[in-house]
Amino acid sequence: MLRVKTPEEVLAIIEKEFRPLPGRTELIALEEAPGRVLAEDITAEEYVPDFHRSTVDGYALKAEDSFGCSESIPAILRCTGEVLMGEAADFTLDRGCCCAVPTGGAIPDGADSVVMLEYAEDYGDGTIGIGKSTAPGENLIFRGGDVHPGKIVLEKGRVLNSRDIGALAAMGRVRVPVVKKLRVAVISTGDELVTPEEKPGPGQVRDVNGPMLIALLRTFGGEAVSYGIVKDEEEKLRATVEQALRDCDAVLLSGGSSVGAKDAACRIIESLGELLLHGIAIKPGKPTILGKAGVKPLVGLPGHPVAAWFVTELFVLPLLSRLMGRERESYSLSARLTESVSANHGRAQYQGLRLERKEGELWARPIRSKSGLISSLAGAEGFFAIDRDCEGLPQGAEIQLITGE
Amino acid sequence: MLRVKTPEEVLAIIEKEFRPLPGRTELIALEEAPGRVLAEDITAEEYVPDFHRSTVDGYALKAEDSFGCSESIPAILRCTGEVLMGEAADFTLDRGCCCAVPTGGAIPDGADSVVMLEYAEDYGDGTIGIGKSTAPGENLIFRGGDVHPGKIVLEKGRVLNSRDIGALAAMGRVRVPVVKKLRVAVISTGDELVTPEEKPGPGQVRDVNGPMLIALLRTFGGEAVSYGIVKDEEEKLRATVEQALRDCDAVLLSGGSSVGAKDAACRIIESLGELLLHGIAIKPGKPTILGKAGVKPLVGLPGHPVAAWFVTELFVLPLLSRLMGRERESYSLSARLTESVSANHGRAQYQGLRLERKEGELWARPIRSKSGLISSLAGAEGFFAIDRDCEGLPQGAEIQLITGE
Repeated sequence: MLRVKTPEEVLAIIEKEFRPLPGRTELIALEEAPGRVLAEDITAEEYVPDFHRSTVDGYALKAEDSFGCSESIPAILRCTGEVLMGEAADFTLDRGCCCAVPTGGAIPDGADSVVMLEYAEDYGDGTIGIGKSTAPGENLIFRGGDVHPGKIVLEKGRVLNSRDIGALAAMGRVRVPVVKKLRVAVISTGDELVTPEEKPGPGQVRDVNGPMLIALLRTFGGEAVSYGIVKDEEEKLRATVEQALRDCDAVLLSGGSSVGAKDAACRIIESLGELLLHGIAIKPGKPTILGKAGVKPLVGLPGHPVAAWFVTELFVLPLLSRLMGRERESYSLSARLTESVSANHGRAQYQGLRLERKEGELWARPIRSKSGLISSLAGAEGFFAIDRDCEGLPQGAEIQLITGE
Repeated sequence: MLRVKTPEEVLAIIEKEFRPLPGRTELIALEEAPGRVLAEDITAEEYVPDFHRSTVDGYALKAEDSFGCSESIPAILRCTGEVLMGEAADFTLDRGCCCAVPTGGAIPDGADSVVMLEYAEDYGDGTIGIGKSTAPGENLIFRGGDVHPGKIVLEKGRVLNSRDIGALAAMGRVRVPVVKKLRVAVISTGDELVTPEEKPGPGQVRDVNGPMLIALLRTFGGEAVSYGIVKDEEEKLRATVEQALRDCDAVLLSGGSSVGAKDAACRIIESLGELLLHGIAIKPGKPTILGKAGVKPLVGLPGHPVAAWFVTELFVLPLLSRLMGRERESYSLSARLTESVSANHGRAQYQGLRLERKEGELWARPIRSKSGLISSLAGAEGFFAIDRDCEGLPQGAEIQLITGE
């Protein structure tokens, strides 16, 4: 029997025992890419913009032609035309000249600055009065001023957001290299389980972990594959796990809360691969098993849904992120406790909370009720951890919010 | 011309002018429900659990039979059998008796407490020694102790997370009433635009707003409908907006950065409905138009992608949330500025930032570079606001993080 591990030890085991899986890049359409993990660095191949571009409606000119002018003593420049939106500025601007340009329009060679419309006056005779002196580079972006060929714009491992999609569109990257979604098997075990569709008979309950973990995995960006409910029969369970290992990249087994069922799950994981840990020093979530078969993780989750959710959120998603080479920054919200909480477990303890805002500050109210299943799942807006070395937290203490997906 | 509005005024206009749309409930399968907006309160119809249920492996008994016992003076109870997992406990426990129950198993009538296995000793002669006194209700959940018929478990307007899915599964709610997704039209306008697939010619740039806004809307949970790129021709644009209004629940028009194009967008919105605002006192994002045609919002977004993103994140998503009756709690992360920033605009200013963690604290480093398009979109991890009444923020000031979707 392995010693129970602390959360930090579990994360270190995940880091040590698992590696990003190779050969998992696929090219997908830009519009499918939000939320996906970038598989390669994206390097600019073009200049953006590809021409000197005005950022205002105004007149392009040589800045030096405006030096020293003011509203009362305007510089008089000859207007040599107008650049239309979306068209080339295929002429060169001479000294003493200017041309009208729209916001986003091209600026002709020779010009190095733009004066906004409101500082210019059209005298109607082909000349423009410039009422403000301007510096080179003002009100325009030079060619490649945004990005130039060779610049790394997005780094691999990044989860693509809508702004990244915009940047990719600007560069014409309509096919995006992303990491293939992981196929994750979800198996619920337990003689007491019926499907959510069924009405439980005496002593029976509906399977909660199956639908909940599938939702969590999909929201995270995985492809969850349901293997339904398997009764606590070791050979049947072993056959299902073996099938799931053939079909999928990772296997999550949840339930089997009886001692015999737990031992069976452990024997199955040991016989199919290597047992990495058995037991995590957290509450809820202690009866967790982690193994690997080749490069594939095999996880035995606790049967209690709240515990299964925690272990998946805290350890399984980081493990899947590791396999995908996915960045996993976890900047969490902090809040202050509305009241003190006690803990006395020698293991990290997670407590449900509801959020309140008082005078602009965020407060967390611990949920005290006996941990019913549904009340814990649906009632908490989030959770916070109490360290295993800590006997409790005083009122006003700052906690880090865990909300998950 | 309407006066430019502050962000607070814009949100108040949205609250006043728009209402949750009626008749938009649809029933969907539980597995499709994560991320969807609940359309009705979910009330429990059954007792959960539907039987007294043990939370440990142990012996069910009448608590009073254990009073006063200890490890050295155990209470000796007659074991009348074992309840199997998933089966009914269809007998009544008498005084002086106990029965074995697994974690999650049913407890027979007559029993009101469970003693954990480790405090019990099986003497092998049909009797069990109980080495710890226990109180009624210990180590079990009474029937309905989690939820009982009539209790509101989830409130309408909630965006369903994986734990909510678990709670719905536990209650057998395999069809979930959710708010139909809003169909949102996205129209890009501008003579300079080409699609992301195309290589821009002289003076042209690729359409960024279309793909970016579609990604943002889909991640938010909307159904985005692309109407492609429309040149700056008023009649053509009007025809497209009219078509989009017939097909969709809301219309977003972006671009048209020239003065003439802006006026055209304004005329079209006015002729199809009511103009609610023209101009918001934020930077970037000032040239924004909001109108409504019947109950449908018509939004003219700025052409600059960073500005279009901001206005959508800050105002359009709250507007769509309002139409959906969707809760929109915005608890944002806070961080401290690594350096001072100045502002001098008379309008709220949004600045890009990158996050750093130093000694457990979160710091925001303002991005100083000239706001190139791609560098702003892809380079910032988030943004923060500087109030319009504020001339700047000192180093160390606390800011609220805006990351969006």
